[in-house]
Amino acid sequence: MFILALKVFLLILYQVHSESDTKSYTELNGCDIGDLADEIASYDTDVRDIIDYVVSGPFKGKTYYELAKFVDLFGARPSGSKVLEDSIDYMIQLTRQEGIQDIVTEDVEVPHWVRGTEKLSMVQPRIKDISILGLGRSVSTPPNGLSAEVIVVRNFDELAKIPDKDVEGKIVLYDPKFISYGETVVYRSQGAAKAGAKGAVASLVRSIAPFSINSPHTGSQNYDDNVTKIPTAAISLEDADLIRRFYDRKEKIVLNLTMSSTYDTKISRNTLIDLKGTNYPEQLVIVSGHIDSWDVGQGAMDDGGGLFVSWAAPLILKRLNLRPKRTLRSIFWTAEELGLVGAYAYEEKHRKDNHKINFIMESDEGTFSPRGLVVAGTPKARCIVAEILKLFESINATTLVESDSPGSDIAVLIQKGIPGASLHNANERYFWFHHTEGDTMNVEDPEELDLCTAFWTSVAYIIADISADIPR
Amino acid sequence: MFILALKVFLLILYQVHSESDTKSYTELNGCDIGDLADEIASYDTDVRDIIDYVVSGPFKGKTYYELAKFVDLFGARPSGSKVLEDSIDYMIQLTRQEGIQDIVTEDVEVPHWVRGTEKLSMVQPRIKDISILGLGRSVSTPPNGLSAEVIVVRNFDELAKIPDKDVEGKIVLYDPKFISYGETVVYRSQGAAKAGAKGAVASLVRSIAPFSINSPHTGSQNYDDNVTKIPTAAISLEDADLIRRFYDRKEKIVLNLTMSSTYDTKISRNTLIDLKGTNYPEQLVIVSGHIDSWDVGQGAMDDGGGLFVSWAAPLILKRLNLRPKRTLRSIFWTAEELGLVGAYAYEEKHRKDNHKINFIMESDEGTFSPRGLVVAGTPKARCIVAEILKLFESINATTLVESDSPGSDIAVLIQKGIPGASLHNANERYFWFHHTEGDTMNVEDPEELDLCTAFWTSVAYIIADISADIPR
Repeated sequence: MFILALKVFLLILYQVHSESDTKSYTELNGCDIGDLADEIASYDTDVRDIIDYVVSGPFKGKTYYELAKFVDLFGARPSGSKVLEDSIDYMIQLTRQEGIQDIVTEDVEVPHWVRGTEKLSMVQPRIKDISILGLGRSVSTPPNGLSAEVIVVRNFDELAKIPDKDVEGKIVLYDPKFISYGETVVYRSQGAAKAGAKGAVASLVRSIAPFSINSPHTGSQNYDDNVTKIPTAAISLEDADLIRRFYDRKEKIVLNLTMSSTYDTKISRNTLIDLKGTNYPEQLVIVSGHIDSWDVGQGAMDDGGGLFVSWAAPLILKRLNLRPKRTLRSIFWTAEELGLVGAYAYEEKHRKDNHKINFIMESDEGTFSPRGLVVAGTPKARCIVAEILKLFESINATTLVESDSPGSDIAVLIQKGIPGASLHNANERYFWFHHTEGDTMNVEDPEELDLCTAFWTSVAYIIADISADIPR
Repeated sequence: MFILALKVFLLILYQVHSESDTKSYTELNGCDIGDLADEIASYDTDVRDIIDYVVSGPFKGKTYYELAKFVDLFGARPSGSKVLEDSIDYMIQLTRQEGIQDIVTEDVEVPHWVRGTEKLSMVQPRIKDISILGLGRSVSTPPNGLSAEVIVVRNFDELAKIPDKDVEGKIVLYDPKFISYGETVVYRSQGAAKAGAKGAVASLVRSIAPFSINSPHTGSQNYDDNVTKIPTAAISLEDADLIRRFYDRKEKIVLNLTMSSTYDTKISRNTLIDLKGTNYPEQLVIVSGHIDSWDVGQGAMDDGGGLFVSWAAPLILKRLNLRPKRTLRSIFWTAEELGLVGAYAYEEKHRKDNHKINFIMESDEGTFSPRGLVVAGTPKARCIVAEILKLFESINATTLVESDSPGSDIAVLIQKGIPGASLHNANERYFWFHHTEGDTMNVEDPEELDLCTAFWTSVAYIIADISADIPR
């Protein structure tokens, strides 16, 4: 995911708070949704049918099986690559095989940053190879690399206090304590711009992660147009700590960095799959995940899981002949990792129809055991969703977490006032693997994926089918 | 560590058993050690003094601090390398600075296997780089590598059932389920020999580990002199699973493997540091760890931690003026990783004096929170040790685990009938990092190391000082 901001942190705070309380969300918030509560309760049978079909029926294991086949065939699917476009074609074909024909793609111009050679070596105080992953859009070093002394800072304040002349010509290593992804990622996303502004020749960042087996984490970063662009990369927690110890012992640290990359743009596609509504086909409930991934690992977790639970939703409803009144649209966003590029393009293209989006959902923070939803919307909207979540007691997915900006791509639309939700799941280890070579099928679990698919499909169905719109 | 055999597995079994039981080891085993129990109890003050000195006194944090300095300075210390010899010199100097002069080194001829280029790529069904680590003593491929189809087996029985003609010219991938290190490591140590015997051109093994962030684990392996030596390497759990899935889908998998290495022998040294006994200086209690490491990672856990707690023991006793009646010998074994080479040399050289070893200890399975000891010896010997462990209730390190072969190097001497013990500690994650690039200081914790140092020093002191020998 690209933008989590304070989400993870708030989510944890909220959980600690909510789990110490035995009252339901609707009780705590004095929800009164009138007759709608009874109507929602009446979906109990449909929910049970969907759960049975996915968890122990014909769909059992299928989400994992199809995700594995997809991930094994394509691997990483970076923005702008041919493999991403091939994977989009594959998904369309896979969907067509289910007899779903309402599929359109919408062209989007996307960044195409290609990692080349990357090598970082400590030269002083001792010779050591250091594992790195260049950050998205990083410029190259000179072909023969650059050698420079390192200064280590914990945060931007520490950097600001160092005179420019002491930063000029140096490599800046940001070594922030990991608080949460949302709070700490700023050192990855803005580190090069701020170090470049002070005359550094390159910047490195301690990977934005709580755990490591010498595994660097890549990710997006943004240069400042008014500042010289400098090469920038992430290093592992272990090597950041090593350099920190040398630095604290007042030893001179010299690194040699060689990086190359190319950067242009390509045309990619958002993919829109519709299960047309029976009564209000122009009204939309959207489920989504992004199909692009980073170029390391296999994009199984980020966001293969989210992609496949959203792929499965219309398909399962079609198979079960559960046609909601509103249209259920499944969107496979493109180029999320380089800045929600597909989502911005969709919002712009469909702006005049945004009011027709009744609710928008995205899973992009893992597909571990589902626990509920992270919901943005008015108090009434949340009360309705909380009532729906009561139907998922059997799979322990009843928790409603409040957020103003759940999901990643969908935040672009939620900021426009559309209510929406992301999948709340048992993703405590998500950032162990995020944006690393370890984002593989081994992170996924067939039974947990089934639960996510069943939950995701059921929630989307109810919201697309109930008599009331989700209020704004 | 090199040979764990069934240890870890048995240890877990034992724990499950023992923790469900509230009776002490001495009660359960009807121990009767007579007046010795009172004598052991009288060491309570010494134990408290040592714990205070290390955990909250002048030695607080020193084990971690010195280990970090050492590891940062030298990094990996493979058998036969100059850096290993430099690190031995450093440790001698560090010990001399404490005023300990009884230090000798004993030359040992050791293997010197040097990893060169290692590259593995999947060519079919899709192109993908695969992370590998060659196994110790692996021969090279032809300079331009070799390409071959892969067959995947779960165990040796499956391989045996495949006709030789179907193995000839292929690469064999062993994909065993990880049960325990001791039970599963045979596929690493004997895989190349058994695949070579059936005409394979190379063999790969799923890393012997329960968890991975795409992190391959190296380790030792033994060719069969009567069989063609074939190149052999470990791959990550993730890539083994990927290849397994392709294989199960009946897809043809072709890999291209390039490996180079050199292999000769060098002279290294065991290091013996004595704190001479006041009454029976010829009688020995030995504490030990190995100073060599694999060539990946930093050898902080395997076995930097064990090395430093054993380095600290005589030093702390000297500082506290606690001179035991028997000599406390601290040994830094060399070339453990390539087959307990230092330990075999020591046993051979000192064979006529083996009867003077009263007790031998090694820490080579982590220095996480200490829980007690894994003890080999007669029932009476174990009863005495169990009585000693009662003194460590304050740090929750009272558990005695029975084993016939605790430790790694010391197993060579224990097999000769010498009683001994290894450190039982909270090492549940040990094999996440073992023999990988992730064996760094980040695995170590200053406070846990202090507890290990205090415990290790105290136990060794009591056994070296009590009136009775540990019976054989």
